[in-house]
Amino acid sequence: MRMSSAFLTDRYELTMLAASLRDGTSSRPSVFELFSRRLSGGRRFGVVAGTGRLLTLLREFHFGEGELRYLRDHDVVDADALRYLENYRFTGTIRGYREGELYFPGSPILTVEGSFADAVVLETLALSVLNHDSAVATAASRMSIAAGERPLAEMGSRRAGERSAVAAARAAYIAGFVATSNLEAGRQWGIPTMGTAAHSWTLLHDSEEDAFRAQVDSLGTDTTLLVDTYDIRAGVDLAIRVAGTELGGVRLDSGDLPIVAGEVRTQLDELGATNTKITVTSDLDEYAIAALAASPVDSYGVGTSVVTGSGYPTAGMVYKLVARQDSAGGWVAVAKASTDKASKGGRKAAFRTLDDGVAIAETIAVSDGFEKVDTAAEHPDARGLQVVLVDNGEIDSSHEGVAGTASAREHHLRVREQLPVRALALSKSDPAIPTRFVDVV
Amino acid sequence: MRMSSAFLTDRYELTMLAASLRDGTSSRPSVFELFSRRLSGGRRFGVVAGTGRLLTLLREFHFGEGELRYLRDHDVVDADALRYLENYRFTGTIRGYREGELYFPGSPILTVEGSFADAVVLETLALSVLNHDSAVATAASRMSIAAGERPLAEMGSRRAGERSAVAAARAAYIAGFVATSNLEAGRQWGIPTMGTAAHSWTLLHDSEEDAFRAQVDSLGTDTTLLVDTYDIRAGVDLAIRVAGTELGGVRLDSGDLPIVAGEVRTQLDELGATNTKITVTSDLDEYAIAALAASPVDSYGVGTSVVTGSGYPTAGMVYKLVARQDSAGGWVAVAKASTDKASKGGRKAAFRTLDDGVAIAETIAVSDGFEKVDTAAEHPDARGLQVVLVDNGEIDSSHEGVAGTASAREHHLRVREQLPVRALALSKSDPAIPTRFVDVV
Repeated sequence: MRMSSAFLTDRYELTMLAASLRDGTSSRPSVFELFSRRLSGGRRFGVVAGTGRLLTLLREFHFGEGELRYLRDHDVVDADALRYLENYRFTGTIRGYREGELYFPGSPILTVEGSFADAVVLETLALSVLNHDSAVATAASRMSIAAGERPLAEMGSRRAGERSAVAAARAAYIAGFVATSNLEAGRQWGIPTMGTAAHSWTLLHDSEEDAFRAQVDSLGTDTTLLVDTYDIRAGVDLAIRVAGTELGGVRLDSGDLPIVAGEVRTQLDELGATNTKITVTSDLDEYAIAALAASPVDSYGVGTSVVTGSGYPTAGMVYKLVARQDSAGGWVAVAKASTDKASKGGRKAAFRTLDDGVAIAETIAVSDGFEKVDTAAEHPDARGLQVVLVDNGEIDSSHEGVAGTASAREHHLRVREQLPVRALALSKSDPAIPTRFVDVV
Repeated sequence: MRMSSAFLTDRYELTMLAASLRDGTSSRPSVFELFSRRLSGGRRFGVVAGTGRLLTLLREFHFGEGELRYLRDHDVVDADALRYLENYRFTGTIRGYREGELYFPGSPILTVEGSFADAVVLETLALSVLNHDSAVATAASRMSIAAGERPLAEMGSRRAGERSAVAAARAAYIAGFVATSNLEAGRQWGIPTMGTAAHSWTLLHDSEEDAFRAQVDSLGTDTTLLVDTYDIRAGVDLAIRVAGTELGGVRLDSGDLPIVAGEVRTQLDELGATNTKITVTSDLDEYAIAALAASPVDSYGVGTSVVTGSGYPTAGMVYKLVARQDSAGGWVAVAKASTDKASKGGRKAAFRTLDDGVAIAETIAVSDGFEKVDTAAEHPDARGLQVVLVDNGEIDSSHEGVAGTASAREHHLRVREQLPVRALALSKSDPAIPTRFVDVV
């Protein structure tokens, strides 16, 4: 049995598909757009993540025996739709922002073109992946900015669904983290893994000394000892006594970190362990990391807050039909009219307008029609933001797997340099740059 | 290649395992406990969910070729540990709260007994599953209480990681929801699925009338029409004109719902469509549902807020070593000493103390030792909360799959009846009942 991602889908996509086959609208050329109306939580920028994972899931998006049987047995769709789904394979084209790219309100993060039937069924899967991964990457990028040169490790698997944890580790890595505790993320995405011991390791032993000795014996002097199970001061003394002054590091997982980190640094230095690093891991988020900037901390481990998007666990992206052909074959821009959830119809081309290398606007050229509405050449001080991810059903594999993940990380760190300084502040505010829609006649 | 869940694990569990094999502590009989120090967000009760999923993942927890190769190639553990992991299968015993059960601060939700090496490696997987699913179930139960007799459908897949979405649908169902939009949740867990059409369906067509006619033609008069793509009043008129007064329902996905729902009900009644139901789906959470109690709404669809735990996307449960044997074979209760993350060592037996059928306390009997410390028989007005989920490696399959999910839902709805009235309020407060630790000598 082949893996299938096709059931990670809301039922209504298939009922719409079935109804469209019946009334002949299934084949209407259509343009769906995945975008966000706003940035969650007064964030100043968003980070696109999940694209590479989505492309791999798209390869697995087919309706096999098991899926078809369920749809038949539960009368979800009729026989015509079952036949259509049996042969389904996405043959359209997807353009989009590169993974790791920044986004702003209205950025056309993905543009999915195909027949209505082909494109409508990707709604839930695309949103699930992009909303989750982008929420994590956006929070992680803020943490990475707050941490500056100090390395950040992701260790929040226990605070996320077991498979989302793997995706979260990947999204955090793309946004600037350097390692993860999650073994599957290491294997699947090539992310360095880290971790030495928990409190249970110390508690297992008859004494803290036994625990430290056994850990150093097994993992070497270069290991990191967790020193706060009992008394931190005594723990640090013991750690250096057991491992010597070349101990790799000590980890602090509780207490008032800015104060404790300073005390521990002084103590380590007095003991001669001037190269022993301090890593802190207790309930950190971007604000706590920023508050530790002046403390002698060498690295951070972040758990809950990064995997849950630091208060905003989903990015709020939506997937909307923005253009389609009418019965006469002409293109029509379409959008829902309701005031509180309005969106902008039409096909879009997106550019980041730069001034001396600094982003000043998200420029989005909008047309009713299908044709490519604008080109980067017309914007000499702009960077085109969209690339072809799927070309008439052919998935560009360079975005997938270990290589795609590494390249998304590089891209993110590169384009983040183009942000204006005000984008780097952590407080709630408006987006760092405005979104400008330009109508193309 | 068999499915494996063993890599959904933090690296440090395996480094501890390896170090324990080396210093001889790996075989020390140990008791780990999964519990929550507090209830997130001032909630008055928590709902245990994920247990059935965890047991199935435990069946798949083995280290195959691929896992062992990664561990070897990346020097995660030494050759002795690789040999141990190659033969790993959990042979210990897990007791715990039944899925769907309520929990309070300190409730011993799972108690995992086995050798240190056997039990320590389950930490991340157990926490990932229980923290995520319980966060969703707790939010969902509050929504279900707020909705009263009106049915709730879960439709948040797009706002959760693609696999967490399936688990979230299941957790919401256990906590009282009646249906989900997610097809995989329908197939895997036997949850009724629902859904008819999105705004894209209306926008695909040259007119709203074309869209409504095609939907009724495909799904029957009993379908639910989405009436807010353009103008709600005109949409309702059109819906009844197209489908007749026996139209199943109309869906409202935007606007000021308490006002709009009242207007639409009046309009439907005036049109003679007195049996046509109104379902609302716009950004609902438990507070919005409660605010609609007096409005003529027939059912609710809940998305983002339920799958993200309505502001608290993780339940904050931890997995701690609470007792183990010392080198002389005697039992020792153990706990971390730090003030901000203190926990209570020792083996626990848990009872819900009742007064005339209403819960008045979570009573937890604590002993240092391994023996069963207390029995329900000693608490005639109490209900024992722990059942054996895994008995010396034998998993009780009655908690798994479709049957286990249905039984967890029944259990939840039954035990929720025992909550005192003050537990049902939505505002932030203390837990509805106190947790009482009783030391057993």
